[in-house]
Amino acid sequence: MFKIAVDAMGGDNAPEAIVKGVELARDQMPGVEFLLFGQLDKVKPLVKNAERLQLIQADEVIAMGDEPVKSVRTKKQSSLVLAANAVKAGEADALFSAGNTGALLAAGIFLVGRIKGIDRPALMTILPAFEGEHDAFVMMDVGANAENRPSHLYQYGILGSFYAKEILGYDTPKVGLLNNGSEEDKGDDVHKEAHQLLKHGGAQGYLNFVGNVESREILQGPVDVVVADGFSGNAVLKSIEGTAGELLHLIKQTILHSGLAAKIGGGLLKPSLKGLQDKLDYSKHGGAVVLGVKAPVVKTHGAAGPEAVLSTMLQINTMLEADLVKKVQTFVAEHKEELAARVPGATE
Amino acid sequence: MFKIAVDAMGGDNAPEAIVKGVELARDQMPGVEFLLFGQLDKVKPLVKNAERLQLIQADEVIAMGDEPVKSVRTKKQSSLVLAANAVKAGEADALFSAGNTGALLAAGIFLVGRIKGIDRPALMTILPAFEGEHDAFVMMDVGANAENRPSHLYQYGILGSFYAKEILGYDTPKVGLLNNGSEEDKGDDVHKEAHQLLKHGGAQGYLNFVGNVESREILQGPVDVVVADGFSGNAVLKSIEGTAGELLHLIKQTILHSGLAAKIGGGLLKPSLKGLQDKLDYSKHGGAVVLGVKAPVVKTHGAAGPEAVLSTMLQINTMLEADLVKKVQTFVAEHKEELAARVPGATE
Repeated sequence: MFKIAVDAMGGDNAPEAIVKGVELARDQMPGVEFLLFGQLDKVKPLVKNAERLQLIQADEVIAMGDEPVKSVRTKKQSSLVLAANAVKAGEADALFSAGNTGALLAAGIFLVGRIKGIDRPALMTILPAFEGEHDAFVMMDVGANAENRPSHLYQYGILGSFYAKEILGYDTPKVGLLNNGSEEDKGDDVHKEAHQLLKHGGAQGYLNFVGNVESREILQGPVDVVVADGFSGNAVLKSIEGTAGELLHLIKQTILHSGLAAKIGGGLLKPSLKGLQDKLDYSKHGGAVVLGVKAPVVKTHGAAGPEAVLSTMLQINTMLEADLVKKVQTFVAEHKEELAARVPGATE
Repeated sequence: MFKIAVDAMGGDNAPEAIVKGVELARDQMPGVEFLLFGQLDKVKPLVKNAERLQLIQADEVIAMGDEPVKSVRTKKQSSLVLAANAVKAGEADALFSAGNTGALLAAGIFLVGRIKGIDRPALMTILPAFEGEHDAFVMMDVGANAENRPSHLYQYGILGSFYAKEILGYDTPKVGLLNNGSEEDKGDDVHKEAHQLLKHGGAQGYLNFVGNVESREILQGPVDVVVADGFSGNAVLKSIEGTAGELLHLIKQTILHSGLAAKIGGGLLKPSLKGLQDKLDYSKHGGAVVLGVKAPVVKTHGAAGPEAVLSTMLQINTMLEADLVKKVQTFVAEHKEELAARVPGATE
């Protein structure tokens, strides 16, 4: 039986939404047990049915505004740190939180621990693809690292391919490097070298690299895995979110402040616009994943309600059933030398 | 009388749209003469009224797909290179093109030349601000450089402030650094040091630095000048364009493929959506500017029609009348030592 360690105190709607979502998940996932870490005086009264739920007292809480690395180091009795330590000790198989993303990253990297051979774990997110073969693609790193070396990006190509293949079920996932032009000599030295590694590196045969992609086109879905350095990946993700949010807000404002015709039009269009908003809501594809660590570590958004918690739990379950981490570990171990090989003339 | 050197062959609709736009501009701008560089057998028949238009033969054309730096170096008889050389020789005061952006950048930097004291000229664009004090903000660098040092970003804060103040007429433009978090220790070393330079550098009193901004919020208009490194500035600009384009496309598709009610709704909403699209069309604010060179060098988008050419000419005229380049030159010369000062502990 799989065990998922849950930070019951993280997120805007915690612990209510977390407990509700976990109960929904428990009812749908007969093979999973949940370890809920939190302040029991708050958590316990919320539980309707204790089947396959373990409640573990955590005196402290890491808040959304807490400094990530510091809080993970100092708040040793927090729900997040205790949940991560349960994974580290082998008492649980995966870690879930809706709280402070940076703190979850730190807990994943420092407590759950890196996979041997993966230098810098990444934060991966799933985005909708509107015109491609598939309806979603993965992008990483979206912010675990402020700086990356070419070899990190190469490893992200491999990690992302594993996720797209094993979890999303894509046959031969296409990998693209987020860069400022399609030609292979585009970008700074890090991106030029990463391009060469992705193209000629030792993971050939597994890695289906199709070249550079630009941020303008990624939502159309030209590739299944977008490899980005953490700084620009983070900036691109946030500008997609910001632009989409601003636009939908403007459309609503425009309808609200226009004449009667526009108001009637808005009313008639509402179901269609709702469909569009659902398409944009990529949380239905699951939460953000810390890839490259020794267990599934998954973050759902801070405002998550019970349904989002449920879908993230289903995603974690898929990762556990597919034995994703083990497959990555085996691949990295078997390709150690090829992965360590560098392109001629590379600076690192 | 101001003279604007025009690359009449650059852009998807050249030379027709360029000549038409120049004639519109000539009729509205009595104090300006236009030097049109192009293949005269094509350009001359398009001219309706030769008043204040000089036509100069250029045998070659730099195409959209040409390698920028190489084409500027080798196509010495191209319309762009001849136009840039006219500015260099003092025969014209500003350079306009709707063609290859990279080639215009190269022509601006290598032929028109850098302002003394500005290390790396930047490409600046104007974007709509939907909820701020002003209805537009400037962002730079959006792609002139693949890599930037902290001092470059510091200089962009100054260049952008000059543009926002002198050309857009903003009183005390607010400057923000595009970074992956609001705290001042966020980002890689380049952005951490740039933050300190912008905060404590010698341009204080002129530079109104308000801190980091994230790509998620910039369209709301929290600042008037967004300072970015060329790599992530380019990625953010393209993802804003891509997301907005994809969303409007999806709304149209949604209406088209929905039932009668949605179609009627779409029809009633059309005028309001058109208004929104106009707001998003930032080309009305003018073209992209190469800032930090010795004359106004301005690019309008490749698909520009006569109206877009006209509005870019008006923008160039404003830059000439405001004597922007001279003001920047004077400021940089007077603050040479303060601008060269580095923050303690900086790596460059």
